[in-house]
Amino acid sequence: MPIYRAPVKDQLFLLNDVLNIGKYSNLPGYADATPDLVSAILDEAAKFCENELQPINHSGDQEGCTRHDDGSVTTPKGFKEAYAKYVEGGWTGLVQDPEYGGQGLPHVLGLCLEEMLVSANHAFAMYPGLSSGAMAAISIDGSDEQKQKYLPKMIEGTWTGTMNLTEPHCGTDLGMLRTKAEPQADGSYKITGTKIFISAGDHDLAENIIHLVLARLPDAPKGVKGISLFIVPKYKVGDDGSVGEFNNVNTASIEHKMGIHGNSTCVLSYEDATGYLIGEANKGLRSMFIMMNAARIGVGVQGFANAEVAYQNAVEYAKERIQGRSLKGAANPDKPADPIIVHPDVRRMLMNAKSFNEAARAASLWCGQLVDLSHKAETEEDRTAADDMVSLLTPIIKGVFTDRGFEYCVSSQQVFGGHGYIVETGMEQFVRDARICQIYEGANGIQALDLVGRKLPSKGGAGAQAFFKFAGEIREQAKGDDRLRPFTDALGAGLKDLQAATMWLMQNAMQNPDNAGAGSTAYMHLFGHVLLGTMWTWMAKVAADKLDAGTDDPTFYETKLTTGRYYMKRRMPETAALLAELQAGADEVMALDVANF
Amino acid sequence: MPIYRAPVKDQLFLLNDVLNIGKYSNLPGYADATPDLVSAILDEAAKFCENELQPINHSGDQEGCTRHDDGSVTTPKGFKEAYAKYVEGGWTGLVQDPEYGGQGLPHVLGLCLEEMLVSANHAFAMYPGLSSGAMAAISIDGSDEQKQKYLPKMIEGTWTGTMNLTEPHCGTDLGMLRTKAEPQADGSYKITGTKIFISAGDHDLAENIIHLVLARLPDAPKGVKGISLFIVPKYKVGDDGSVGEFNNVNTASIEHKMGIHGNSTCVLSYEDATGYLIGEANKGLRSMFIMMNAARIGVGVQGFANAEVAYQNAVEYAKERIQGRSLKGAANPDKPADPIIVHPDVRRMLMNAKSFNEAARAASLWCGQLVDLSHKAETEEDRTAADDMVSLLTPIIKGVFTDRGFEYCVSSQQVFGGHGYIVETGMEQFVRDARICQIYEGANGIQALDLVGRKLPSKGGAGAQAFFKFAGEIREQAKGDDRLRPFTDALGAGLKDLQAATMWLMQNAMQNPDNAGAGSTAYMHLFGHVLLGTMWTWMAKVAADKLDAGTDDPTFYETKLTTGRYYMKRRMPETAALLAELQAGADEVMALDVANF
Repeated sequence: MPIYRAPVKDQLFLLNDVLNIGKYSNLPGYADATPDLVSAILDEAAKFCENELQPINHSGDQEGCTRHDDGSVTTPKGFKEAYAKYVEGGWTGLVQDPEYGGQGLPHVLGLCLEEMLVSANHAFAMYPGLSSGAMAAISIDGSDEQKQKYLPKMIEGTWTGTMNLTEPHCGTDLGMLRTKAEPQADGSYKITGTKIFISAGDHDLAENIIHLVLARLPDAPKGVKGISLFIVPKYKVGDDGSVGEFNNVNTASIEHKMGIHGNSTCVLSYEDATGYLIGEANKGLRSMFIMMNAARIGVGVQGFANAEVAYQNAVEYAKERIQGRSLKGAANPDKPADPIIVHPDVRRMLMNAKSFNEAARAASLWCGQLVDLSHKAETEEDRTAADDMVSLLTPIIKGVFTDRGFEYCVSSQQVFGGHGYIVETGMEQFVRDARICQIYEGANGIQALDLVGRKLPSKGGAGAQAFFKFAGEIREQAKGDDRLRPFTDALGAGLKDLQAATMWLMQNAMQNPDNAGAGSTAYMHLFGHVLLGTMWTWMAKVAADKLDAGTDDPTFYETKLTTGRYYMKRRMPETAALLAELQAGADEVMALDVANF
Repeated sequence: MPIYRAPVKDQLFLLNDVLNIGKYSNLPGYADATPDLVSAILDEAAKFCENELQPINHSGDQEGCTRHDDGSVTTPKGFKEAYAKYVEGGWTGLVQDPEYGGQGLPHVLGLCLEEMLVSANHAFAMYPGLSSGAMAAISIDGSDEQKQKYLPKMIEGTWTGTMNLTEPHCGTDLGMLRTKAEPQADGSYKITGTKIFISAGDHDLAENIIHLVLARLPDAPKGVKGISLFIVPKYKVGDDGSVGEFNNVNTASIEHKMGIHGNSTCVLSYEDATGYLIGEANKGLRSMFIMMNAARIGVGVQGFANAEVAYQNAVEYAKERIQGRSLKGAANPDKPADPIIVHPDVRRMLMNAKSFNEAARAASLWCGQLVDLSHKAETEEDRTAADDMVSLLTPIIKGVFTDRGFEYCVSSQQVFGGHGYIVETGMEQFVRDARICQIYEGANGIQALDLVGRKLPSKGGAGAQAFFKFAGEIREQAKGDDRLRPFTDALGAGLKDLQAATMWLMQNAMQNPDNAGAGSTAYMHLFGHVLLGTMWTWMAKVAADKLDAGTDDPTFYETKLTTGRYYMKRRMPETAALLAELQAGADEVMALDVANF
């Protein structure tokens, strides 16, 4: 059975030494996040994830969710009990608004929790995860009355939430959606339509489920400008907050999926269900996108969270499995063979995952901190600057971290040889579960288009310029230290390639938008390398300073330097190939007539 | 439900126009392979695969194999009937020795069949596939009596075969295997031990199963030099060929696997089962490796065969699914959206798969032809030259084509968006099935080591030199034609990188073998690009010549040129990144103490 150990030490290194969250103690939420409290919270979260969630991850996959004849849905054995403990521990309100009962701690802490939850049990993590998304939408666009009615119960975890976008004929292109909302005399709406792929769509964990549903008013304009957002509870909620009668949100079926079997992904059929408009009519997509952008950073975290647990298990196996001999002679001469971790190609797979996971964690937490600053920084200018950077980073974190997270789940499975293909080791589950991250919350091709088509040109390229400046400063600070030379060299080369790629897009995308589309994924991955290389250079500088200052734990910082050098020397050179792919342009991509594929 | 159309036209192009198999009509088997016969055979094979095998692929995955309480095993619904038709069609003997009832057709035709079988139904294809492996071992090392006793029944398909290598504690490192063979007075042996991961290990398709089993004699030397190979039939075979009593080969269980559910991968428990030594005592591994090398080329074919069927389905979906608009304005203004094949990033995924599949098919068939020449060419010199090239190409075809085949199954699944994650579309099955190819018949890390540690230095590098010469000649022939400039340019750059990589290995692997190990996978993939680029240059030259000569079907050849240019311009530049990864050496790969992973 798989193991999991939450990376608390690494998270504390990032929060305290790299991101230096202590310096933001003037901001709401951060004031409470003292080093001791943060450390205690992460320890508790680790305990819960390791001891409660991880043990029911594999069994949850094998059992899946069940829809009963009466239409009710039960989650796998142990999920209900684990969720009760999760609620009891106060985890549902960790980063939520204190006004409605939340603890109001920094968003960046929420991402630390999210990583652990997903590593321990991706399918379980989605129940509170979707709830957070729904709470975000209500917080942004809900009336005071709506907030009062729904948020406290959701924050305390008594109710959960979902996001309902997709319909059978439309996913990416929401302009085509057909679910209807008919206005009623009392100001409510009757919602009718079918939604598919609804994560956490029905279950037995909570007493009510608050669905956020995109639908169309009778007089709505065509396309994306005619979509409104509605609150549709599974059971109607009285004015006193009491849970009343069933609201005709029927679970038509549970989807049969490649993975995340422990999460009930539902087909929901709304039949004159009572809904309540949230925010302005016909402006529903805007709210949904604000919510989705936040969710996308979370999905990026899921990408490396899966790779992290897969990596940890591959390391254990590589230490224990004996097979063959070191190329340099027996490392273990008194045993019939050496542990496979002596083999360079096994280490290559482990180091690929390790050097990615740690930098992806750093980038995600940095972005989480920027999300906090975008809401809470003291000046408008600082808030805007943080928001611009978050906007730019979001598609990269979602697209790159889930593509590469999946890749490292696959390579960690590979370390197990034939045993990795066998269900019982649990490695193939990580691959199947991680696969969804590349697809949901906007498939990765959409992330790449969002990056080159929207985020890059936004405000005249201000976000990208700010990133180049930031990365350049990180590089500048690391200069002059021989230990950091591999970092500054490789980051310099990566930045040069990224700037050339950006320039090429500016020159070639206007005249032919297909040039942007054809190179969008290459550009996103190029940017991803530079982002991760920047994080490594930052971490390496901090580690070198720690070593210079004297530390009880030199091994931790030396390991950071080695792992970072691995990334800079072996992975960063891919930027050149990605630049060449981009610069090859759209001609051959678009040349074939459809009939000739 | 997924579709499949066998690529007969493309296979005929390769056999007739590129490989020009007609010019070998002086060789045994090739004489019979007239263009008309070859075309008729491929058409029949296509019909069988499309109409009989593909329709039971998805249902076979969902149902899986069943072990009953009495220890017997049944395959999924329809497999028994399909196998009977397969036997009836004479497919089991297509390339087998006419002396024992085979049709003796060229091996290269067998690979065409193998591709179609796997695309249509990977799990099914493994039953005859393993049989071919077992027949190869008996053909190589069996006594005349053994050949007479087993081959005719196996060639006609009445019996199937398996290969039994792996045990719970050893896979790659067969030196540790424990299965015992005790000599009996009558010259037979009693075989006792447990074998795992035995593909096609038990089933209801054939009246007997001939297991080829690696085991140890009582006085055998330790390690790999003490392994012998035995024939162990499931049911004893009388001297008259009659099938007799059960031979104590017990199916302890069917493995639970990520994919290929329609194939019964068994744990076999041998309890004093009667076995017969095949070949020399203690030389069993040698025979097993001859057999396995042939099987590895077949697994490489499986790699792109999975990608091919996944690609075909992605193309169909991309033509039908309407979602969003072309970046250049509506392509389909009278519909609410355009088919997603208008989007450059969707085309990128399709072109990646297409441009890989077609070149991988070419390389595999070229290698298949070389296998034929290694056995049948008129001079010893020609046979040796062909054999050297096959040895070199085998790990590249197995390792690269299965890694990339998997990648393109994943990207073809991605084209389906959320629907690709749903079981019913069948796309996730291709991913799960293709995954095994990277693992079995020697995990891909082993292929990479085989390439750099064994094949490359073999005979003073003769194989690699012959390949460089061949690729250089292909490039030379394409020079001076402007249409082929992208091919000769990119192939030139790729060859330069490959030669630099080879030189680096020669200079750095001797002093530190970990340098070879740490760069082996990068080197293998670099070589893979150059191999595929060579194939594209070859095909492009043939296509250009056809166009110049005038043809009824210019679109076919123009599409080849476009698809090839895509590969050369967008994929070949990866060689530079792979060279950089190799040249980074082993330092950071090996630096960490085991405790610091």
